[in-house]
Amino acid sequence: MAHFPATPSFTGFNTPSRIEADIYDLAHQGSIPPELSGAFFRVQPDPQYPPRLGDDIAFNGDGMITRFHFHDGQCDFRQRWAKTDKWQLEHDAGAGLFGAYRNPLTDDDRVQGKIRGTANTNAWIHGGKLYALKEDSPALVMDPATMETLGYTWFNGKMTGQTFTAHPKIDPATGNMIAFGYAASGLCSDDCTYYEVTPEGELIHEIWFKAPYYNMMHDFAITEDYALFHIVPSIGSWDRLERGLPHFGFDTSLPVYLGVLPRRAGASADDIRWFKRDNCFASHVMNAFQEGTKIHFDTPEAKNNMFPFFPDVDGAPFDPVAASSYLTRWTVDMASNGDGFAAITRLTETVGEFPRIDDRFAGLPYRYGWMLEMDMRRPCELRGGSAAGMLMNCLFLKDHRTGAEQHWWCGPVSSLQEPCFIPRAKDAPEGDGWVVQVCNRLEEARSDLLLFDALAIEKGPIATINIPIRLRFGLHGNWADADAIGLAA
Amino acid sequence: MAHFPATPSFTGFNTPSRIEADIYDLAHQGSIPPELSGAFFRVQPDPQYPPRLGDDIAFNGDGMITRFHFHDGQCDFRQRWAKTDKWQLEHDAGAGLFGAYRNPLTDDDRVQGKIRGTANTNAWIHGGKLYALKEDSPALVMDPATMETLGYTWFNGKMTGQTFTAHPKIDPATGNMIAFGYAASGLCSDDCTYYEVTPEGELIHEIWFKAPYYNMMHDFAITEDYALFHIVPSIGSWDRLERGLPHFGFDTSLPVYLGVLPRRAGASADDIRWFKRDNCFASHVMNAFQEGTKIHFDTPEAKNNMFPFFPDVDGAPFDPVAASSYLTRWTVDMASNGDGFAAITRLTETVGEFPRIDDRFAGLPYRYGWMLEMDMRRPCELRGGSAAGMLMNCLFLKDHRTGAEQHWWCGPVSSLQEPCFIPRAKDAPEGDGWVVQVCNRLEEARSDLLLFDALAIEKGPIATINIPIRLRFGLHGNWADADAIGLAA
Repeated sequence: MAHFPATPSFTGFNTPSRIEADIYDLAHQGSIPPELSGAFFRVQPDPQYPPRLGDDIAFNGDGMITRFHFHDGQCDFRQRWAKTDKWQLEHDAGAGLFGAYRNPLTDDDRVQGKIRGTANTNAWIHGGKLYALKEDSPALVMDPATMETLGYTWFNGKMTGQTFTAHPKIDPATGNMIAFGYAASGLCSDDCTYYEVTPEGELIHEIWFKAPYYNMMHDFAITEDYALFHIVPSIGSWDRLERGLPHFGFDTSLPVYLGVLPRRAGASADDIRWFKRDNCFASHVMNAFQEGTKIHFDTPEAKNNMFPFFPDVDGAPFDPVAASSYLTRWTVDMASNGDGFAAITRLTETVGEFPRIDDRFAGLPYRYGWMLEMDMRRPCELRGGSAAGMLMNCLFLKDHRTGAEQHWWCGPVSSLQEPCFIPRAKDAPEGDGWVVQVCNRLEEARSDLLLFDALAIEKGPIATINIPIRLRFGLHGNWADADAIGLAA
Repeated sequence: MAHFPATPSFTGFNTPSRIEADIYDLAHQGSIPPELSGAFFRVQPDPQYPPRLGDDIAFNGDGMITRFHFHDGQCDFRQRWAKTDKWQLEHDAGAGLFGAYRNPLTDDDRVQGKIRGTANTNAWIHGGKLYALKEDSPALVMDPATMETLGYTWFNGKMTGQTFTAHPKIDPATGNMIAFGYAASGLCSDDCTYYEVTPEGELIHEIWFKAPYYNMMHDFAITEDYALFHIVPSIGSWDRLERGLPHFGFDTSLPVYLGVLPRRAGASADDIRWFKRDNCFASHVMNAFQEGTKIHFDTPEAKNNMFPFFPDVDGAPFDPVAASSYLTRWTVDMASNGDGFAAITRLTETVGEFPRIDDRFAGLPYRYGWMLEMDMRRPCELRGGSAAGMLMNCLFLKDHRTGAEQHWWCGPVSSLQEPCFIPRAKDAPEGDGWVVQVCNRLEEARSDLLLFDALAIEKGPIATINIPIRLRFGLHGNWADADAIGLAA
């Protein structure tokens, strides 16, 4: 390998990091509660090799998993590659063999037919396993204690779809992992799957269904009785791939859907009900829950496309103002006739994304939500003027019961990565605990891990844990108690 | 552990790094010759824990060993702690237990009598073993392939001294490792030992002798027939330690000696001849060799103390001009009467230290020497104005045959670490090969490894290999061919 291109995706804070590391007892300011015992896992796309096509988008980097292991008032750091089939093939070749994001037509002949997954989207824990997830491929299993890669899983052959979402949920009632796949029968197909997996790793429920149209189904939601799928027109097609266009493009002419699939045993694709609304953009889901016959689905909604690298299919220029997303409640009523929404209610005037909750309340009525906020009124003082991914500069807490909001600004030369809630105890009340998140120190080639009292974020972090290596733009992460993953408490 | 003090020893480029890491195939500019097959090892002092006494000097950090493994035109990175007894005791305690540099009176009671070594001075290879060396303690053995620590060695019990130099030599004629120890019978003692160890690890020669006075015997030299010990008055005493002074202090009232010990079997302390000269400062040795009855000993010599942290015993202020060192040839004649030097000849007007040679010529007449140069005429443009250790800003090559000099400047915001010569082949002529050295990018929290054509350094590096983590001020390092250390070629 020589070196990476001098493009925005590979320079400044986006310079590839590629570091497998162990650091005992990270230096920190403030104090780490000694009762905090477990690990926060997160993932960053981090290209192992220079892009085969000369440049690439951030979403196409190889998954690098970071673990922050908290115990005895200290935090230990470990970082390892998610060694996907792609990673291993390219490692053995000493070069990039896979081309553009979800376009196998751009791959080296030697890797035709191989799984293209990068495992770069979520570091997820269930049943004592660490899953490194990318929605275009099966789930990659890693050992959460050693962080060695074990390989892709099809759940003892019971998973018949080709893909597994990067955003599963845990059903608080059963502890089962609820998941889905799209493009489940092949790239650009409108076939989808619904999965339910026990903590022992048994796939006990698989339903095949069709989406209204092929699109980027990045997240979904559960409620006690339903799985909810929002269909937003980041569309794709083989035609686009053959023309060398980005896999996805945004189509403002298509409607948006919310699909409601009963989760009960025996349900099938015939039982899905599709509700329909006007065009908009929405990607992540904060949470969803039932209220009588109504279903509420809370998602950051933008007027138009949020992904400039998946541009408008008709060539409309990217509009940063229309791309601003506001947490919005989509309500449908299962007792209604027709396919209309019952209500669409903006819940805040704060621009934000990367919504998270106290996951013990997944699918249930809930009070608190945390997000990354982009406050454009705050000064930004980067020397070079370039930003790291989306420049999220505040942590935001919404209290749905009172409407109260808290904001914490990370300063003019930093940006924030997705927060993650940690309950104070297994039976602690909702929101009682901590929030962790990575803070990028954009001019110092390093990051901090910030630890907040979850319900007092405006007071600032109670501990600022110094990470002496450069992390990159990261995506999603999760907490696991020490006893759940075989780590020393 | 909380955090490190905000003192110059622990901030800026000196911020502790503490990173064990693996990085495959470092990105680089230029090209790495595919025939380069082996590894460059180096060490940096890197404190595992905040100093027990509130602040500390760079020389007291724990040894962190870096390996740059070259093969197939690429360079892989590995970094591991040298896990000394001190490191393990402090690791288990989660805090610093050992106090000031070479002052056990400042240690925690729990570690009284334990080996205080930090293994932070040289990463040395002999007989397939990696040695992490600190002159106040035995040699720490590591596996050069895995870089796991194996522990201290007393060479199957045959080494009876308590210390082993950080600057052994390899006798080109036998492949034996020639070494010594000082303070060999205990801290501040004037007892010294001479050692010779075969590639199989057998200690075949040990001689006890006395130094003219206790001092910091950091380096030495060999020739075909002799071992040479320079005695320079960085002195120390238990009285200083009891008074809480730095272990060493410089005494301008004492003479400097050069001791000549025959290396032949059967030689003893009685055979040492001590030559004497006026006071000066000298630490590292470039090389030494015999010419008839004369012995030439080449060392960077300064008029006065080079170590501000080991200050003048009479309180004289540190003088940076008098601390400037110039490569100087000390000549003594074994056919002479008396204890006077035969000649003292300055070999250059270039200010430099960290002298290195083509080690295949250790103790033999030689032509080429490389050094770090401090060129004060070059601009320095550091934002904060602080420098990393000694701000060595040029690589310097001296051709002793022609007198020619080459200089290469690393730029206004960088500094250099010790160079190391790599022969092109085992039987290549002297100087035919490469030089590697770490270049600190002082404002980017990272470093590069530079690779030069050894005899054309003024052309600049042929490869600049990007190290994506922050290294610290480093000390000494060495090259090993792949076949000598069980690494893949």
